[in-house]
Amino acid sequence: MKTQKISSAVIRRLPRYYRNLVDLSKEGVERISSRALGESMNLTASQIRQDLSCFGEFGQQGYGYNVESLRKEIADILGMSRGHTAVLLGAGKLGRALMENFQFNQIGFKLTAAFDINPELIGQQISGVTIYSVDELEQYLAGNPTSVGVLTVPRDTALSMAQRLVDSRVKGIWNFTNSELNFKDSSVIVENVHFADSLLTLSYLISEEP
Amino acid sequence: MKTQKISSAVIRRLPRYYRNLVDLSKEGVERISSRALGESMNLTASQIRQDLSCFGEFGQQGYGYNVESLRKEIADILGMSRGHTAVLLGAGKLGRALMENFQFNQIGFKLTAAFDINPELIGQQISGVTIYSVDELEQYLAGNPTSVGVLTVPRDTALSMAQRLVDSRVKGIWNFTNSELNFKDSSVIVENVHFADSLLTLSYLISEEP
Repeated sequence: MKTQKISSAVIRRLPRYYRNLVDLSKEGVERISSRALGESMNLTASQIRQDLSCFGEFGQQGYGYNVESLRKEIADILGMSRGHTAVLLGAGKLGRALMENFQFNQIGFKLTAAFDINPELIGQQISGVTIYSVDELEQYLAGNPTSVGVLTVPRDTALSMAQRLVDSRVKGIWNFTNSELNFKDSSVIVENVHFADSLLTLSYLISEEP
Repeated sequence: MKTQKISSAVIRRLPRYYRNLVDLSKEGVERISSRALGESMNLTASQIRQDLSCFGEFGQQGYGYNVESLRKEIADILGMSRGHTAVLLGAGKLGRALMENFQFNQIGFKLTAAFDINPELIGQQISGVTIYSVDELEQYLAGNPTSVGVLTVPRDTALSMAQRLVDSRVKGIWNFTNSELNFKDSSVIVENVHFADSLLTLSYLISEEP
């Protein structure tokens, strides 16, 4: 499928394509032109065509894209059919909000376990996922190779917990801790959700106005 | 302060500079070279110098940057001293997690009110912030001009609630709803926190590995 090195900007747009195609599919739309898809995503038709050409031949001139088959192709490209698994570290408020509300399975992930240090939480189930003691982390990951660690621990333990995930050979860390995680000697991939950075970017942009 | 058009990549790095400088300041570091700052941020020294040169003359050759004054300058550039205010729409699990855990004041925002439709929530206070009926939104915003609406409502009401924020002339929307919000006829700025997009990007990147 992957025929060339894809720029990170294109990679970041892929989930948006996926999301828009899911919506179109639900609305019963069967095919769509690059122009119409572009309008709904605030992109130009040529940008759409260029982005999607990175991954192969999808559209047909004069026909546009078949919504459902493009959706499936992008799901595959995004790795949604790889059977990715995840564990969550830190079942505090944010961790629990993710466990209760985030539909891991809708994007091809299975959340298999959570870990915390709070004895009151250990043994509880949230959305069918058991919370274990963090002391059991290494043993669990050794027995259950896991794609991604979701890091929702407090900031002061972020680095040490991330290191334990890396040592247990997760492939990726989904980092909510507001800490910079750099593992230069590891192939682990860190994806950050920095709330404060996001709101500060908005702060900058609205402060530009007169 | 702003002397030229700043690229969006630089803008997105500014909060990371700020975060790193806060950490350095807490650690008691008084000055830092662009090389050392770069190492902690996974950037090259020349990239650091180039980024910061967009905003004026900060460092001194052979001395580096004064950590605390650079931190203050970047805080100003980010609009942290503008007295920005925010209201939150949708005090469900995610909304409450933000109200309880996210330190709006640490980045120059004051969260002044929350709104929900659930009668059981209306009148409650979370972290000192009162939850009002969403029926009172327009009246509140008319009396209390507000910089940013934090949108944590369910996806099916995202668009209508966002429109009400736009009509009440907020400057920015911090969008957690996983919906595309396009307001082409408005100057409102939308900053998205799309959890699913973020995890899908990670899914793509870990799926590339053999």
